[in-house]
Amino acid sequence: MRPLLAFAAGELAEADPERVAIAGSAVELIHAYSLVHDDLPCMDDDVLRRGRPTCHVEYDEPTALLVGDALQSLAFQLLGEYRLADDMKTQLEMVKILAAASGSRGMAGGQAIDLEAVGKMLAVPELEFMHIHKTGAIIRASALLGARCGSSLDAKQLGQVDLFAKLIGLAFQVVDDLLDAESSTATLGKTAGKDAKQGKPTYVSAIGIVRSRELAQELRGNALDALAVFGERALRLRQLADFIVLRQF
Amino acid sequence: MRPLLAFAAGELAEADPERVAIAGSAVELIHAYSLVHDDLPCMDDDVLRRGRPTCHVEYDEPTALLVGDALQSLAFQLLGEYRLADDMKTQLEMVKILAAASGSRGMAGGQAIDLEAVGKMLAVPELEFMHIHKTGAIIRASALLGARCGSSLDAKQLGQVDLFAKLIGLAFQVVDDLLDAESSTATLGKTAGKDAKQGKPTYVSAIGIVRSRELAQELRGNALDALAVFGERALRLRQLADFIVLRQF
Repeated sequence: MRPLLAFAAGELAEADPERVAIAGSAVELIHAYSLVHDDLPCMDDDVLRRGRPTCHVEYDEPTALLVGDALQSLAFQLLGEYRLADDMKTQLEMVKILAAASGSRGMAGGQAIDLEAVGKMLAVPELEFMHIHKTGAIIRASALLGARCGSSLDAKQLGQVDLFAKLIGLAFQVVDDLLDAESSTATLGKTAGKDAKQGKPTYVSAIGIVRSRELAQELRGNALDALAVFGERALRLRQLADFIVLRQF
Repeated sequence: MRPLLAFAAGELAEADPERVAIAGSAVELIHAYSLVHDDLPCMDDDVLRRGRPTCHVEYDEPTALLVGDALQSLAFQLLGEYRLADDMKTQLEMVKILAAASGSRGMAGGQAIDLEAVGKMLAVPELEFMHIHKTGAIIRASALLGARCGSSLDAKQLGQVDLFAKLIGLAFQVVDDLLDAESSTATLGKTAGKDAKQGKPTYVSAIGIVRSRELAQELRGNALDALAVFGERALRLRQLADFIVLRQF
């Protein structure tokens, strides 16, 4: 989903697809590292990821820790090593965007909130706050990095891309909670039903399945509204919103 | 030691000290994250660092994992956020240098070699290979980032700074092994004698205390030779070499 988002935003910004591929890979490396660390025994203690044994199960815990650490470094190495933006100032901003999205005020901070939330009932605004950090920051970084590989969007238009990414990031999470509650492990490629088992607050536990489905559709609608300014040029981003929300039904 | 090295190299390159402070902080954040992760139970399982409880002892393991992850992100955020070099191309190179020094072919890779080496006898060339990655890469990055904050060194001079940093990085490790073998926990601020207890190969176990002391002095001499090209301008770097090697005696 993140690479597709980077490509769709890059297309809108008339960016060189090769540049977007590298910027998108940097984001994906951050995501991959977070999964390796997330699966560790002291975190989610999970044995299955993408239908295969998790890193610390296949190898060992110290290796998984170092692999995650090195994947994060590699993400920033890509941003420092390849020419990705028309001017170097923009490329340094990409470094800043990805770093901020990954750190204590982005993904890592969101995971700390997530740990704190285990066993608690959260209302929708609190769930939103958690997910905007935990998964949303990196999703937004995907869209922004893809867009910054090109030069054709102004600051206001970049703001609309960011808003779109924020809303489909939340929609993605609502659908993820629905899938976790309703699917089998075989379909997901990761352990199903573990949110409830771990006492993690979800949209399903907060507002139920029916209202969660409605919320996903509302977020999709708002996300599509954010793209109105682009007209037909945002076709791929619109398709992505549909793909994310409709993947379950 | 790393911040001092960044400042000394920065002074040689006539860099703005404020820029060097930020670049040096980025390196120090990488070092700090590596210590937090290194102390985790699945790694060195240490309870004491700088005379205080380690992060996972003071808080808990998931927090220490996330703190380390977020510190790494913050390092790159600094390099993306502040103006540190005269031109943006050089600053992007600083991102690349720090990322490469941190990742699988730098520090994280060195730590993997270190884990693999537990219980083995390594000869000096193998010890060097391990330390050049595990601690040396970040020490070299300190010097290079400090120097790149200024513009007065050419490529050959930067190469001499790099060589100096490589040699004192090794000297630092030899002295560290000596201190670990000879000092008390109170003096070190971290658990003493743990290398031997953990079966880690050290210079002391490979060649003994007397030869290790000689090796530290040889490395110091070679490091000082690498500075000859700079004459009096390298005073602070020379002082640093002395500080590192003479701290024990």
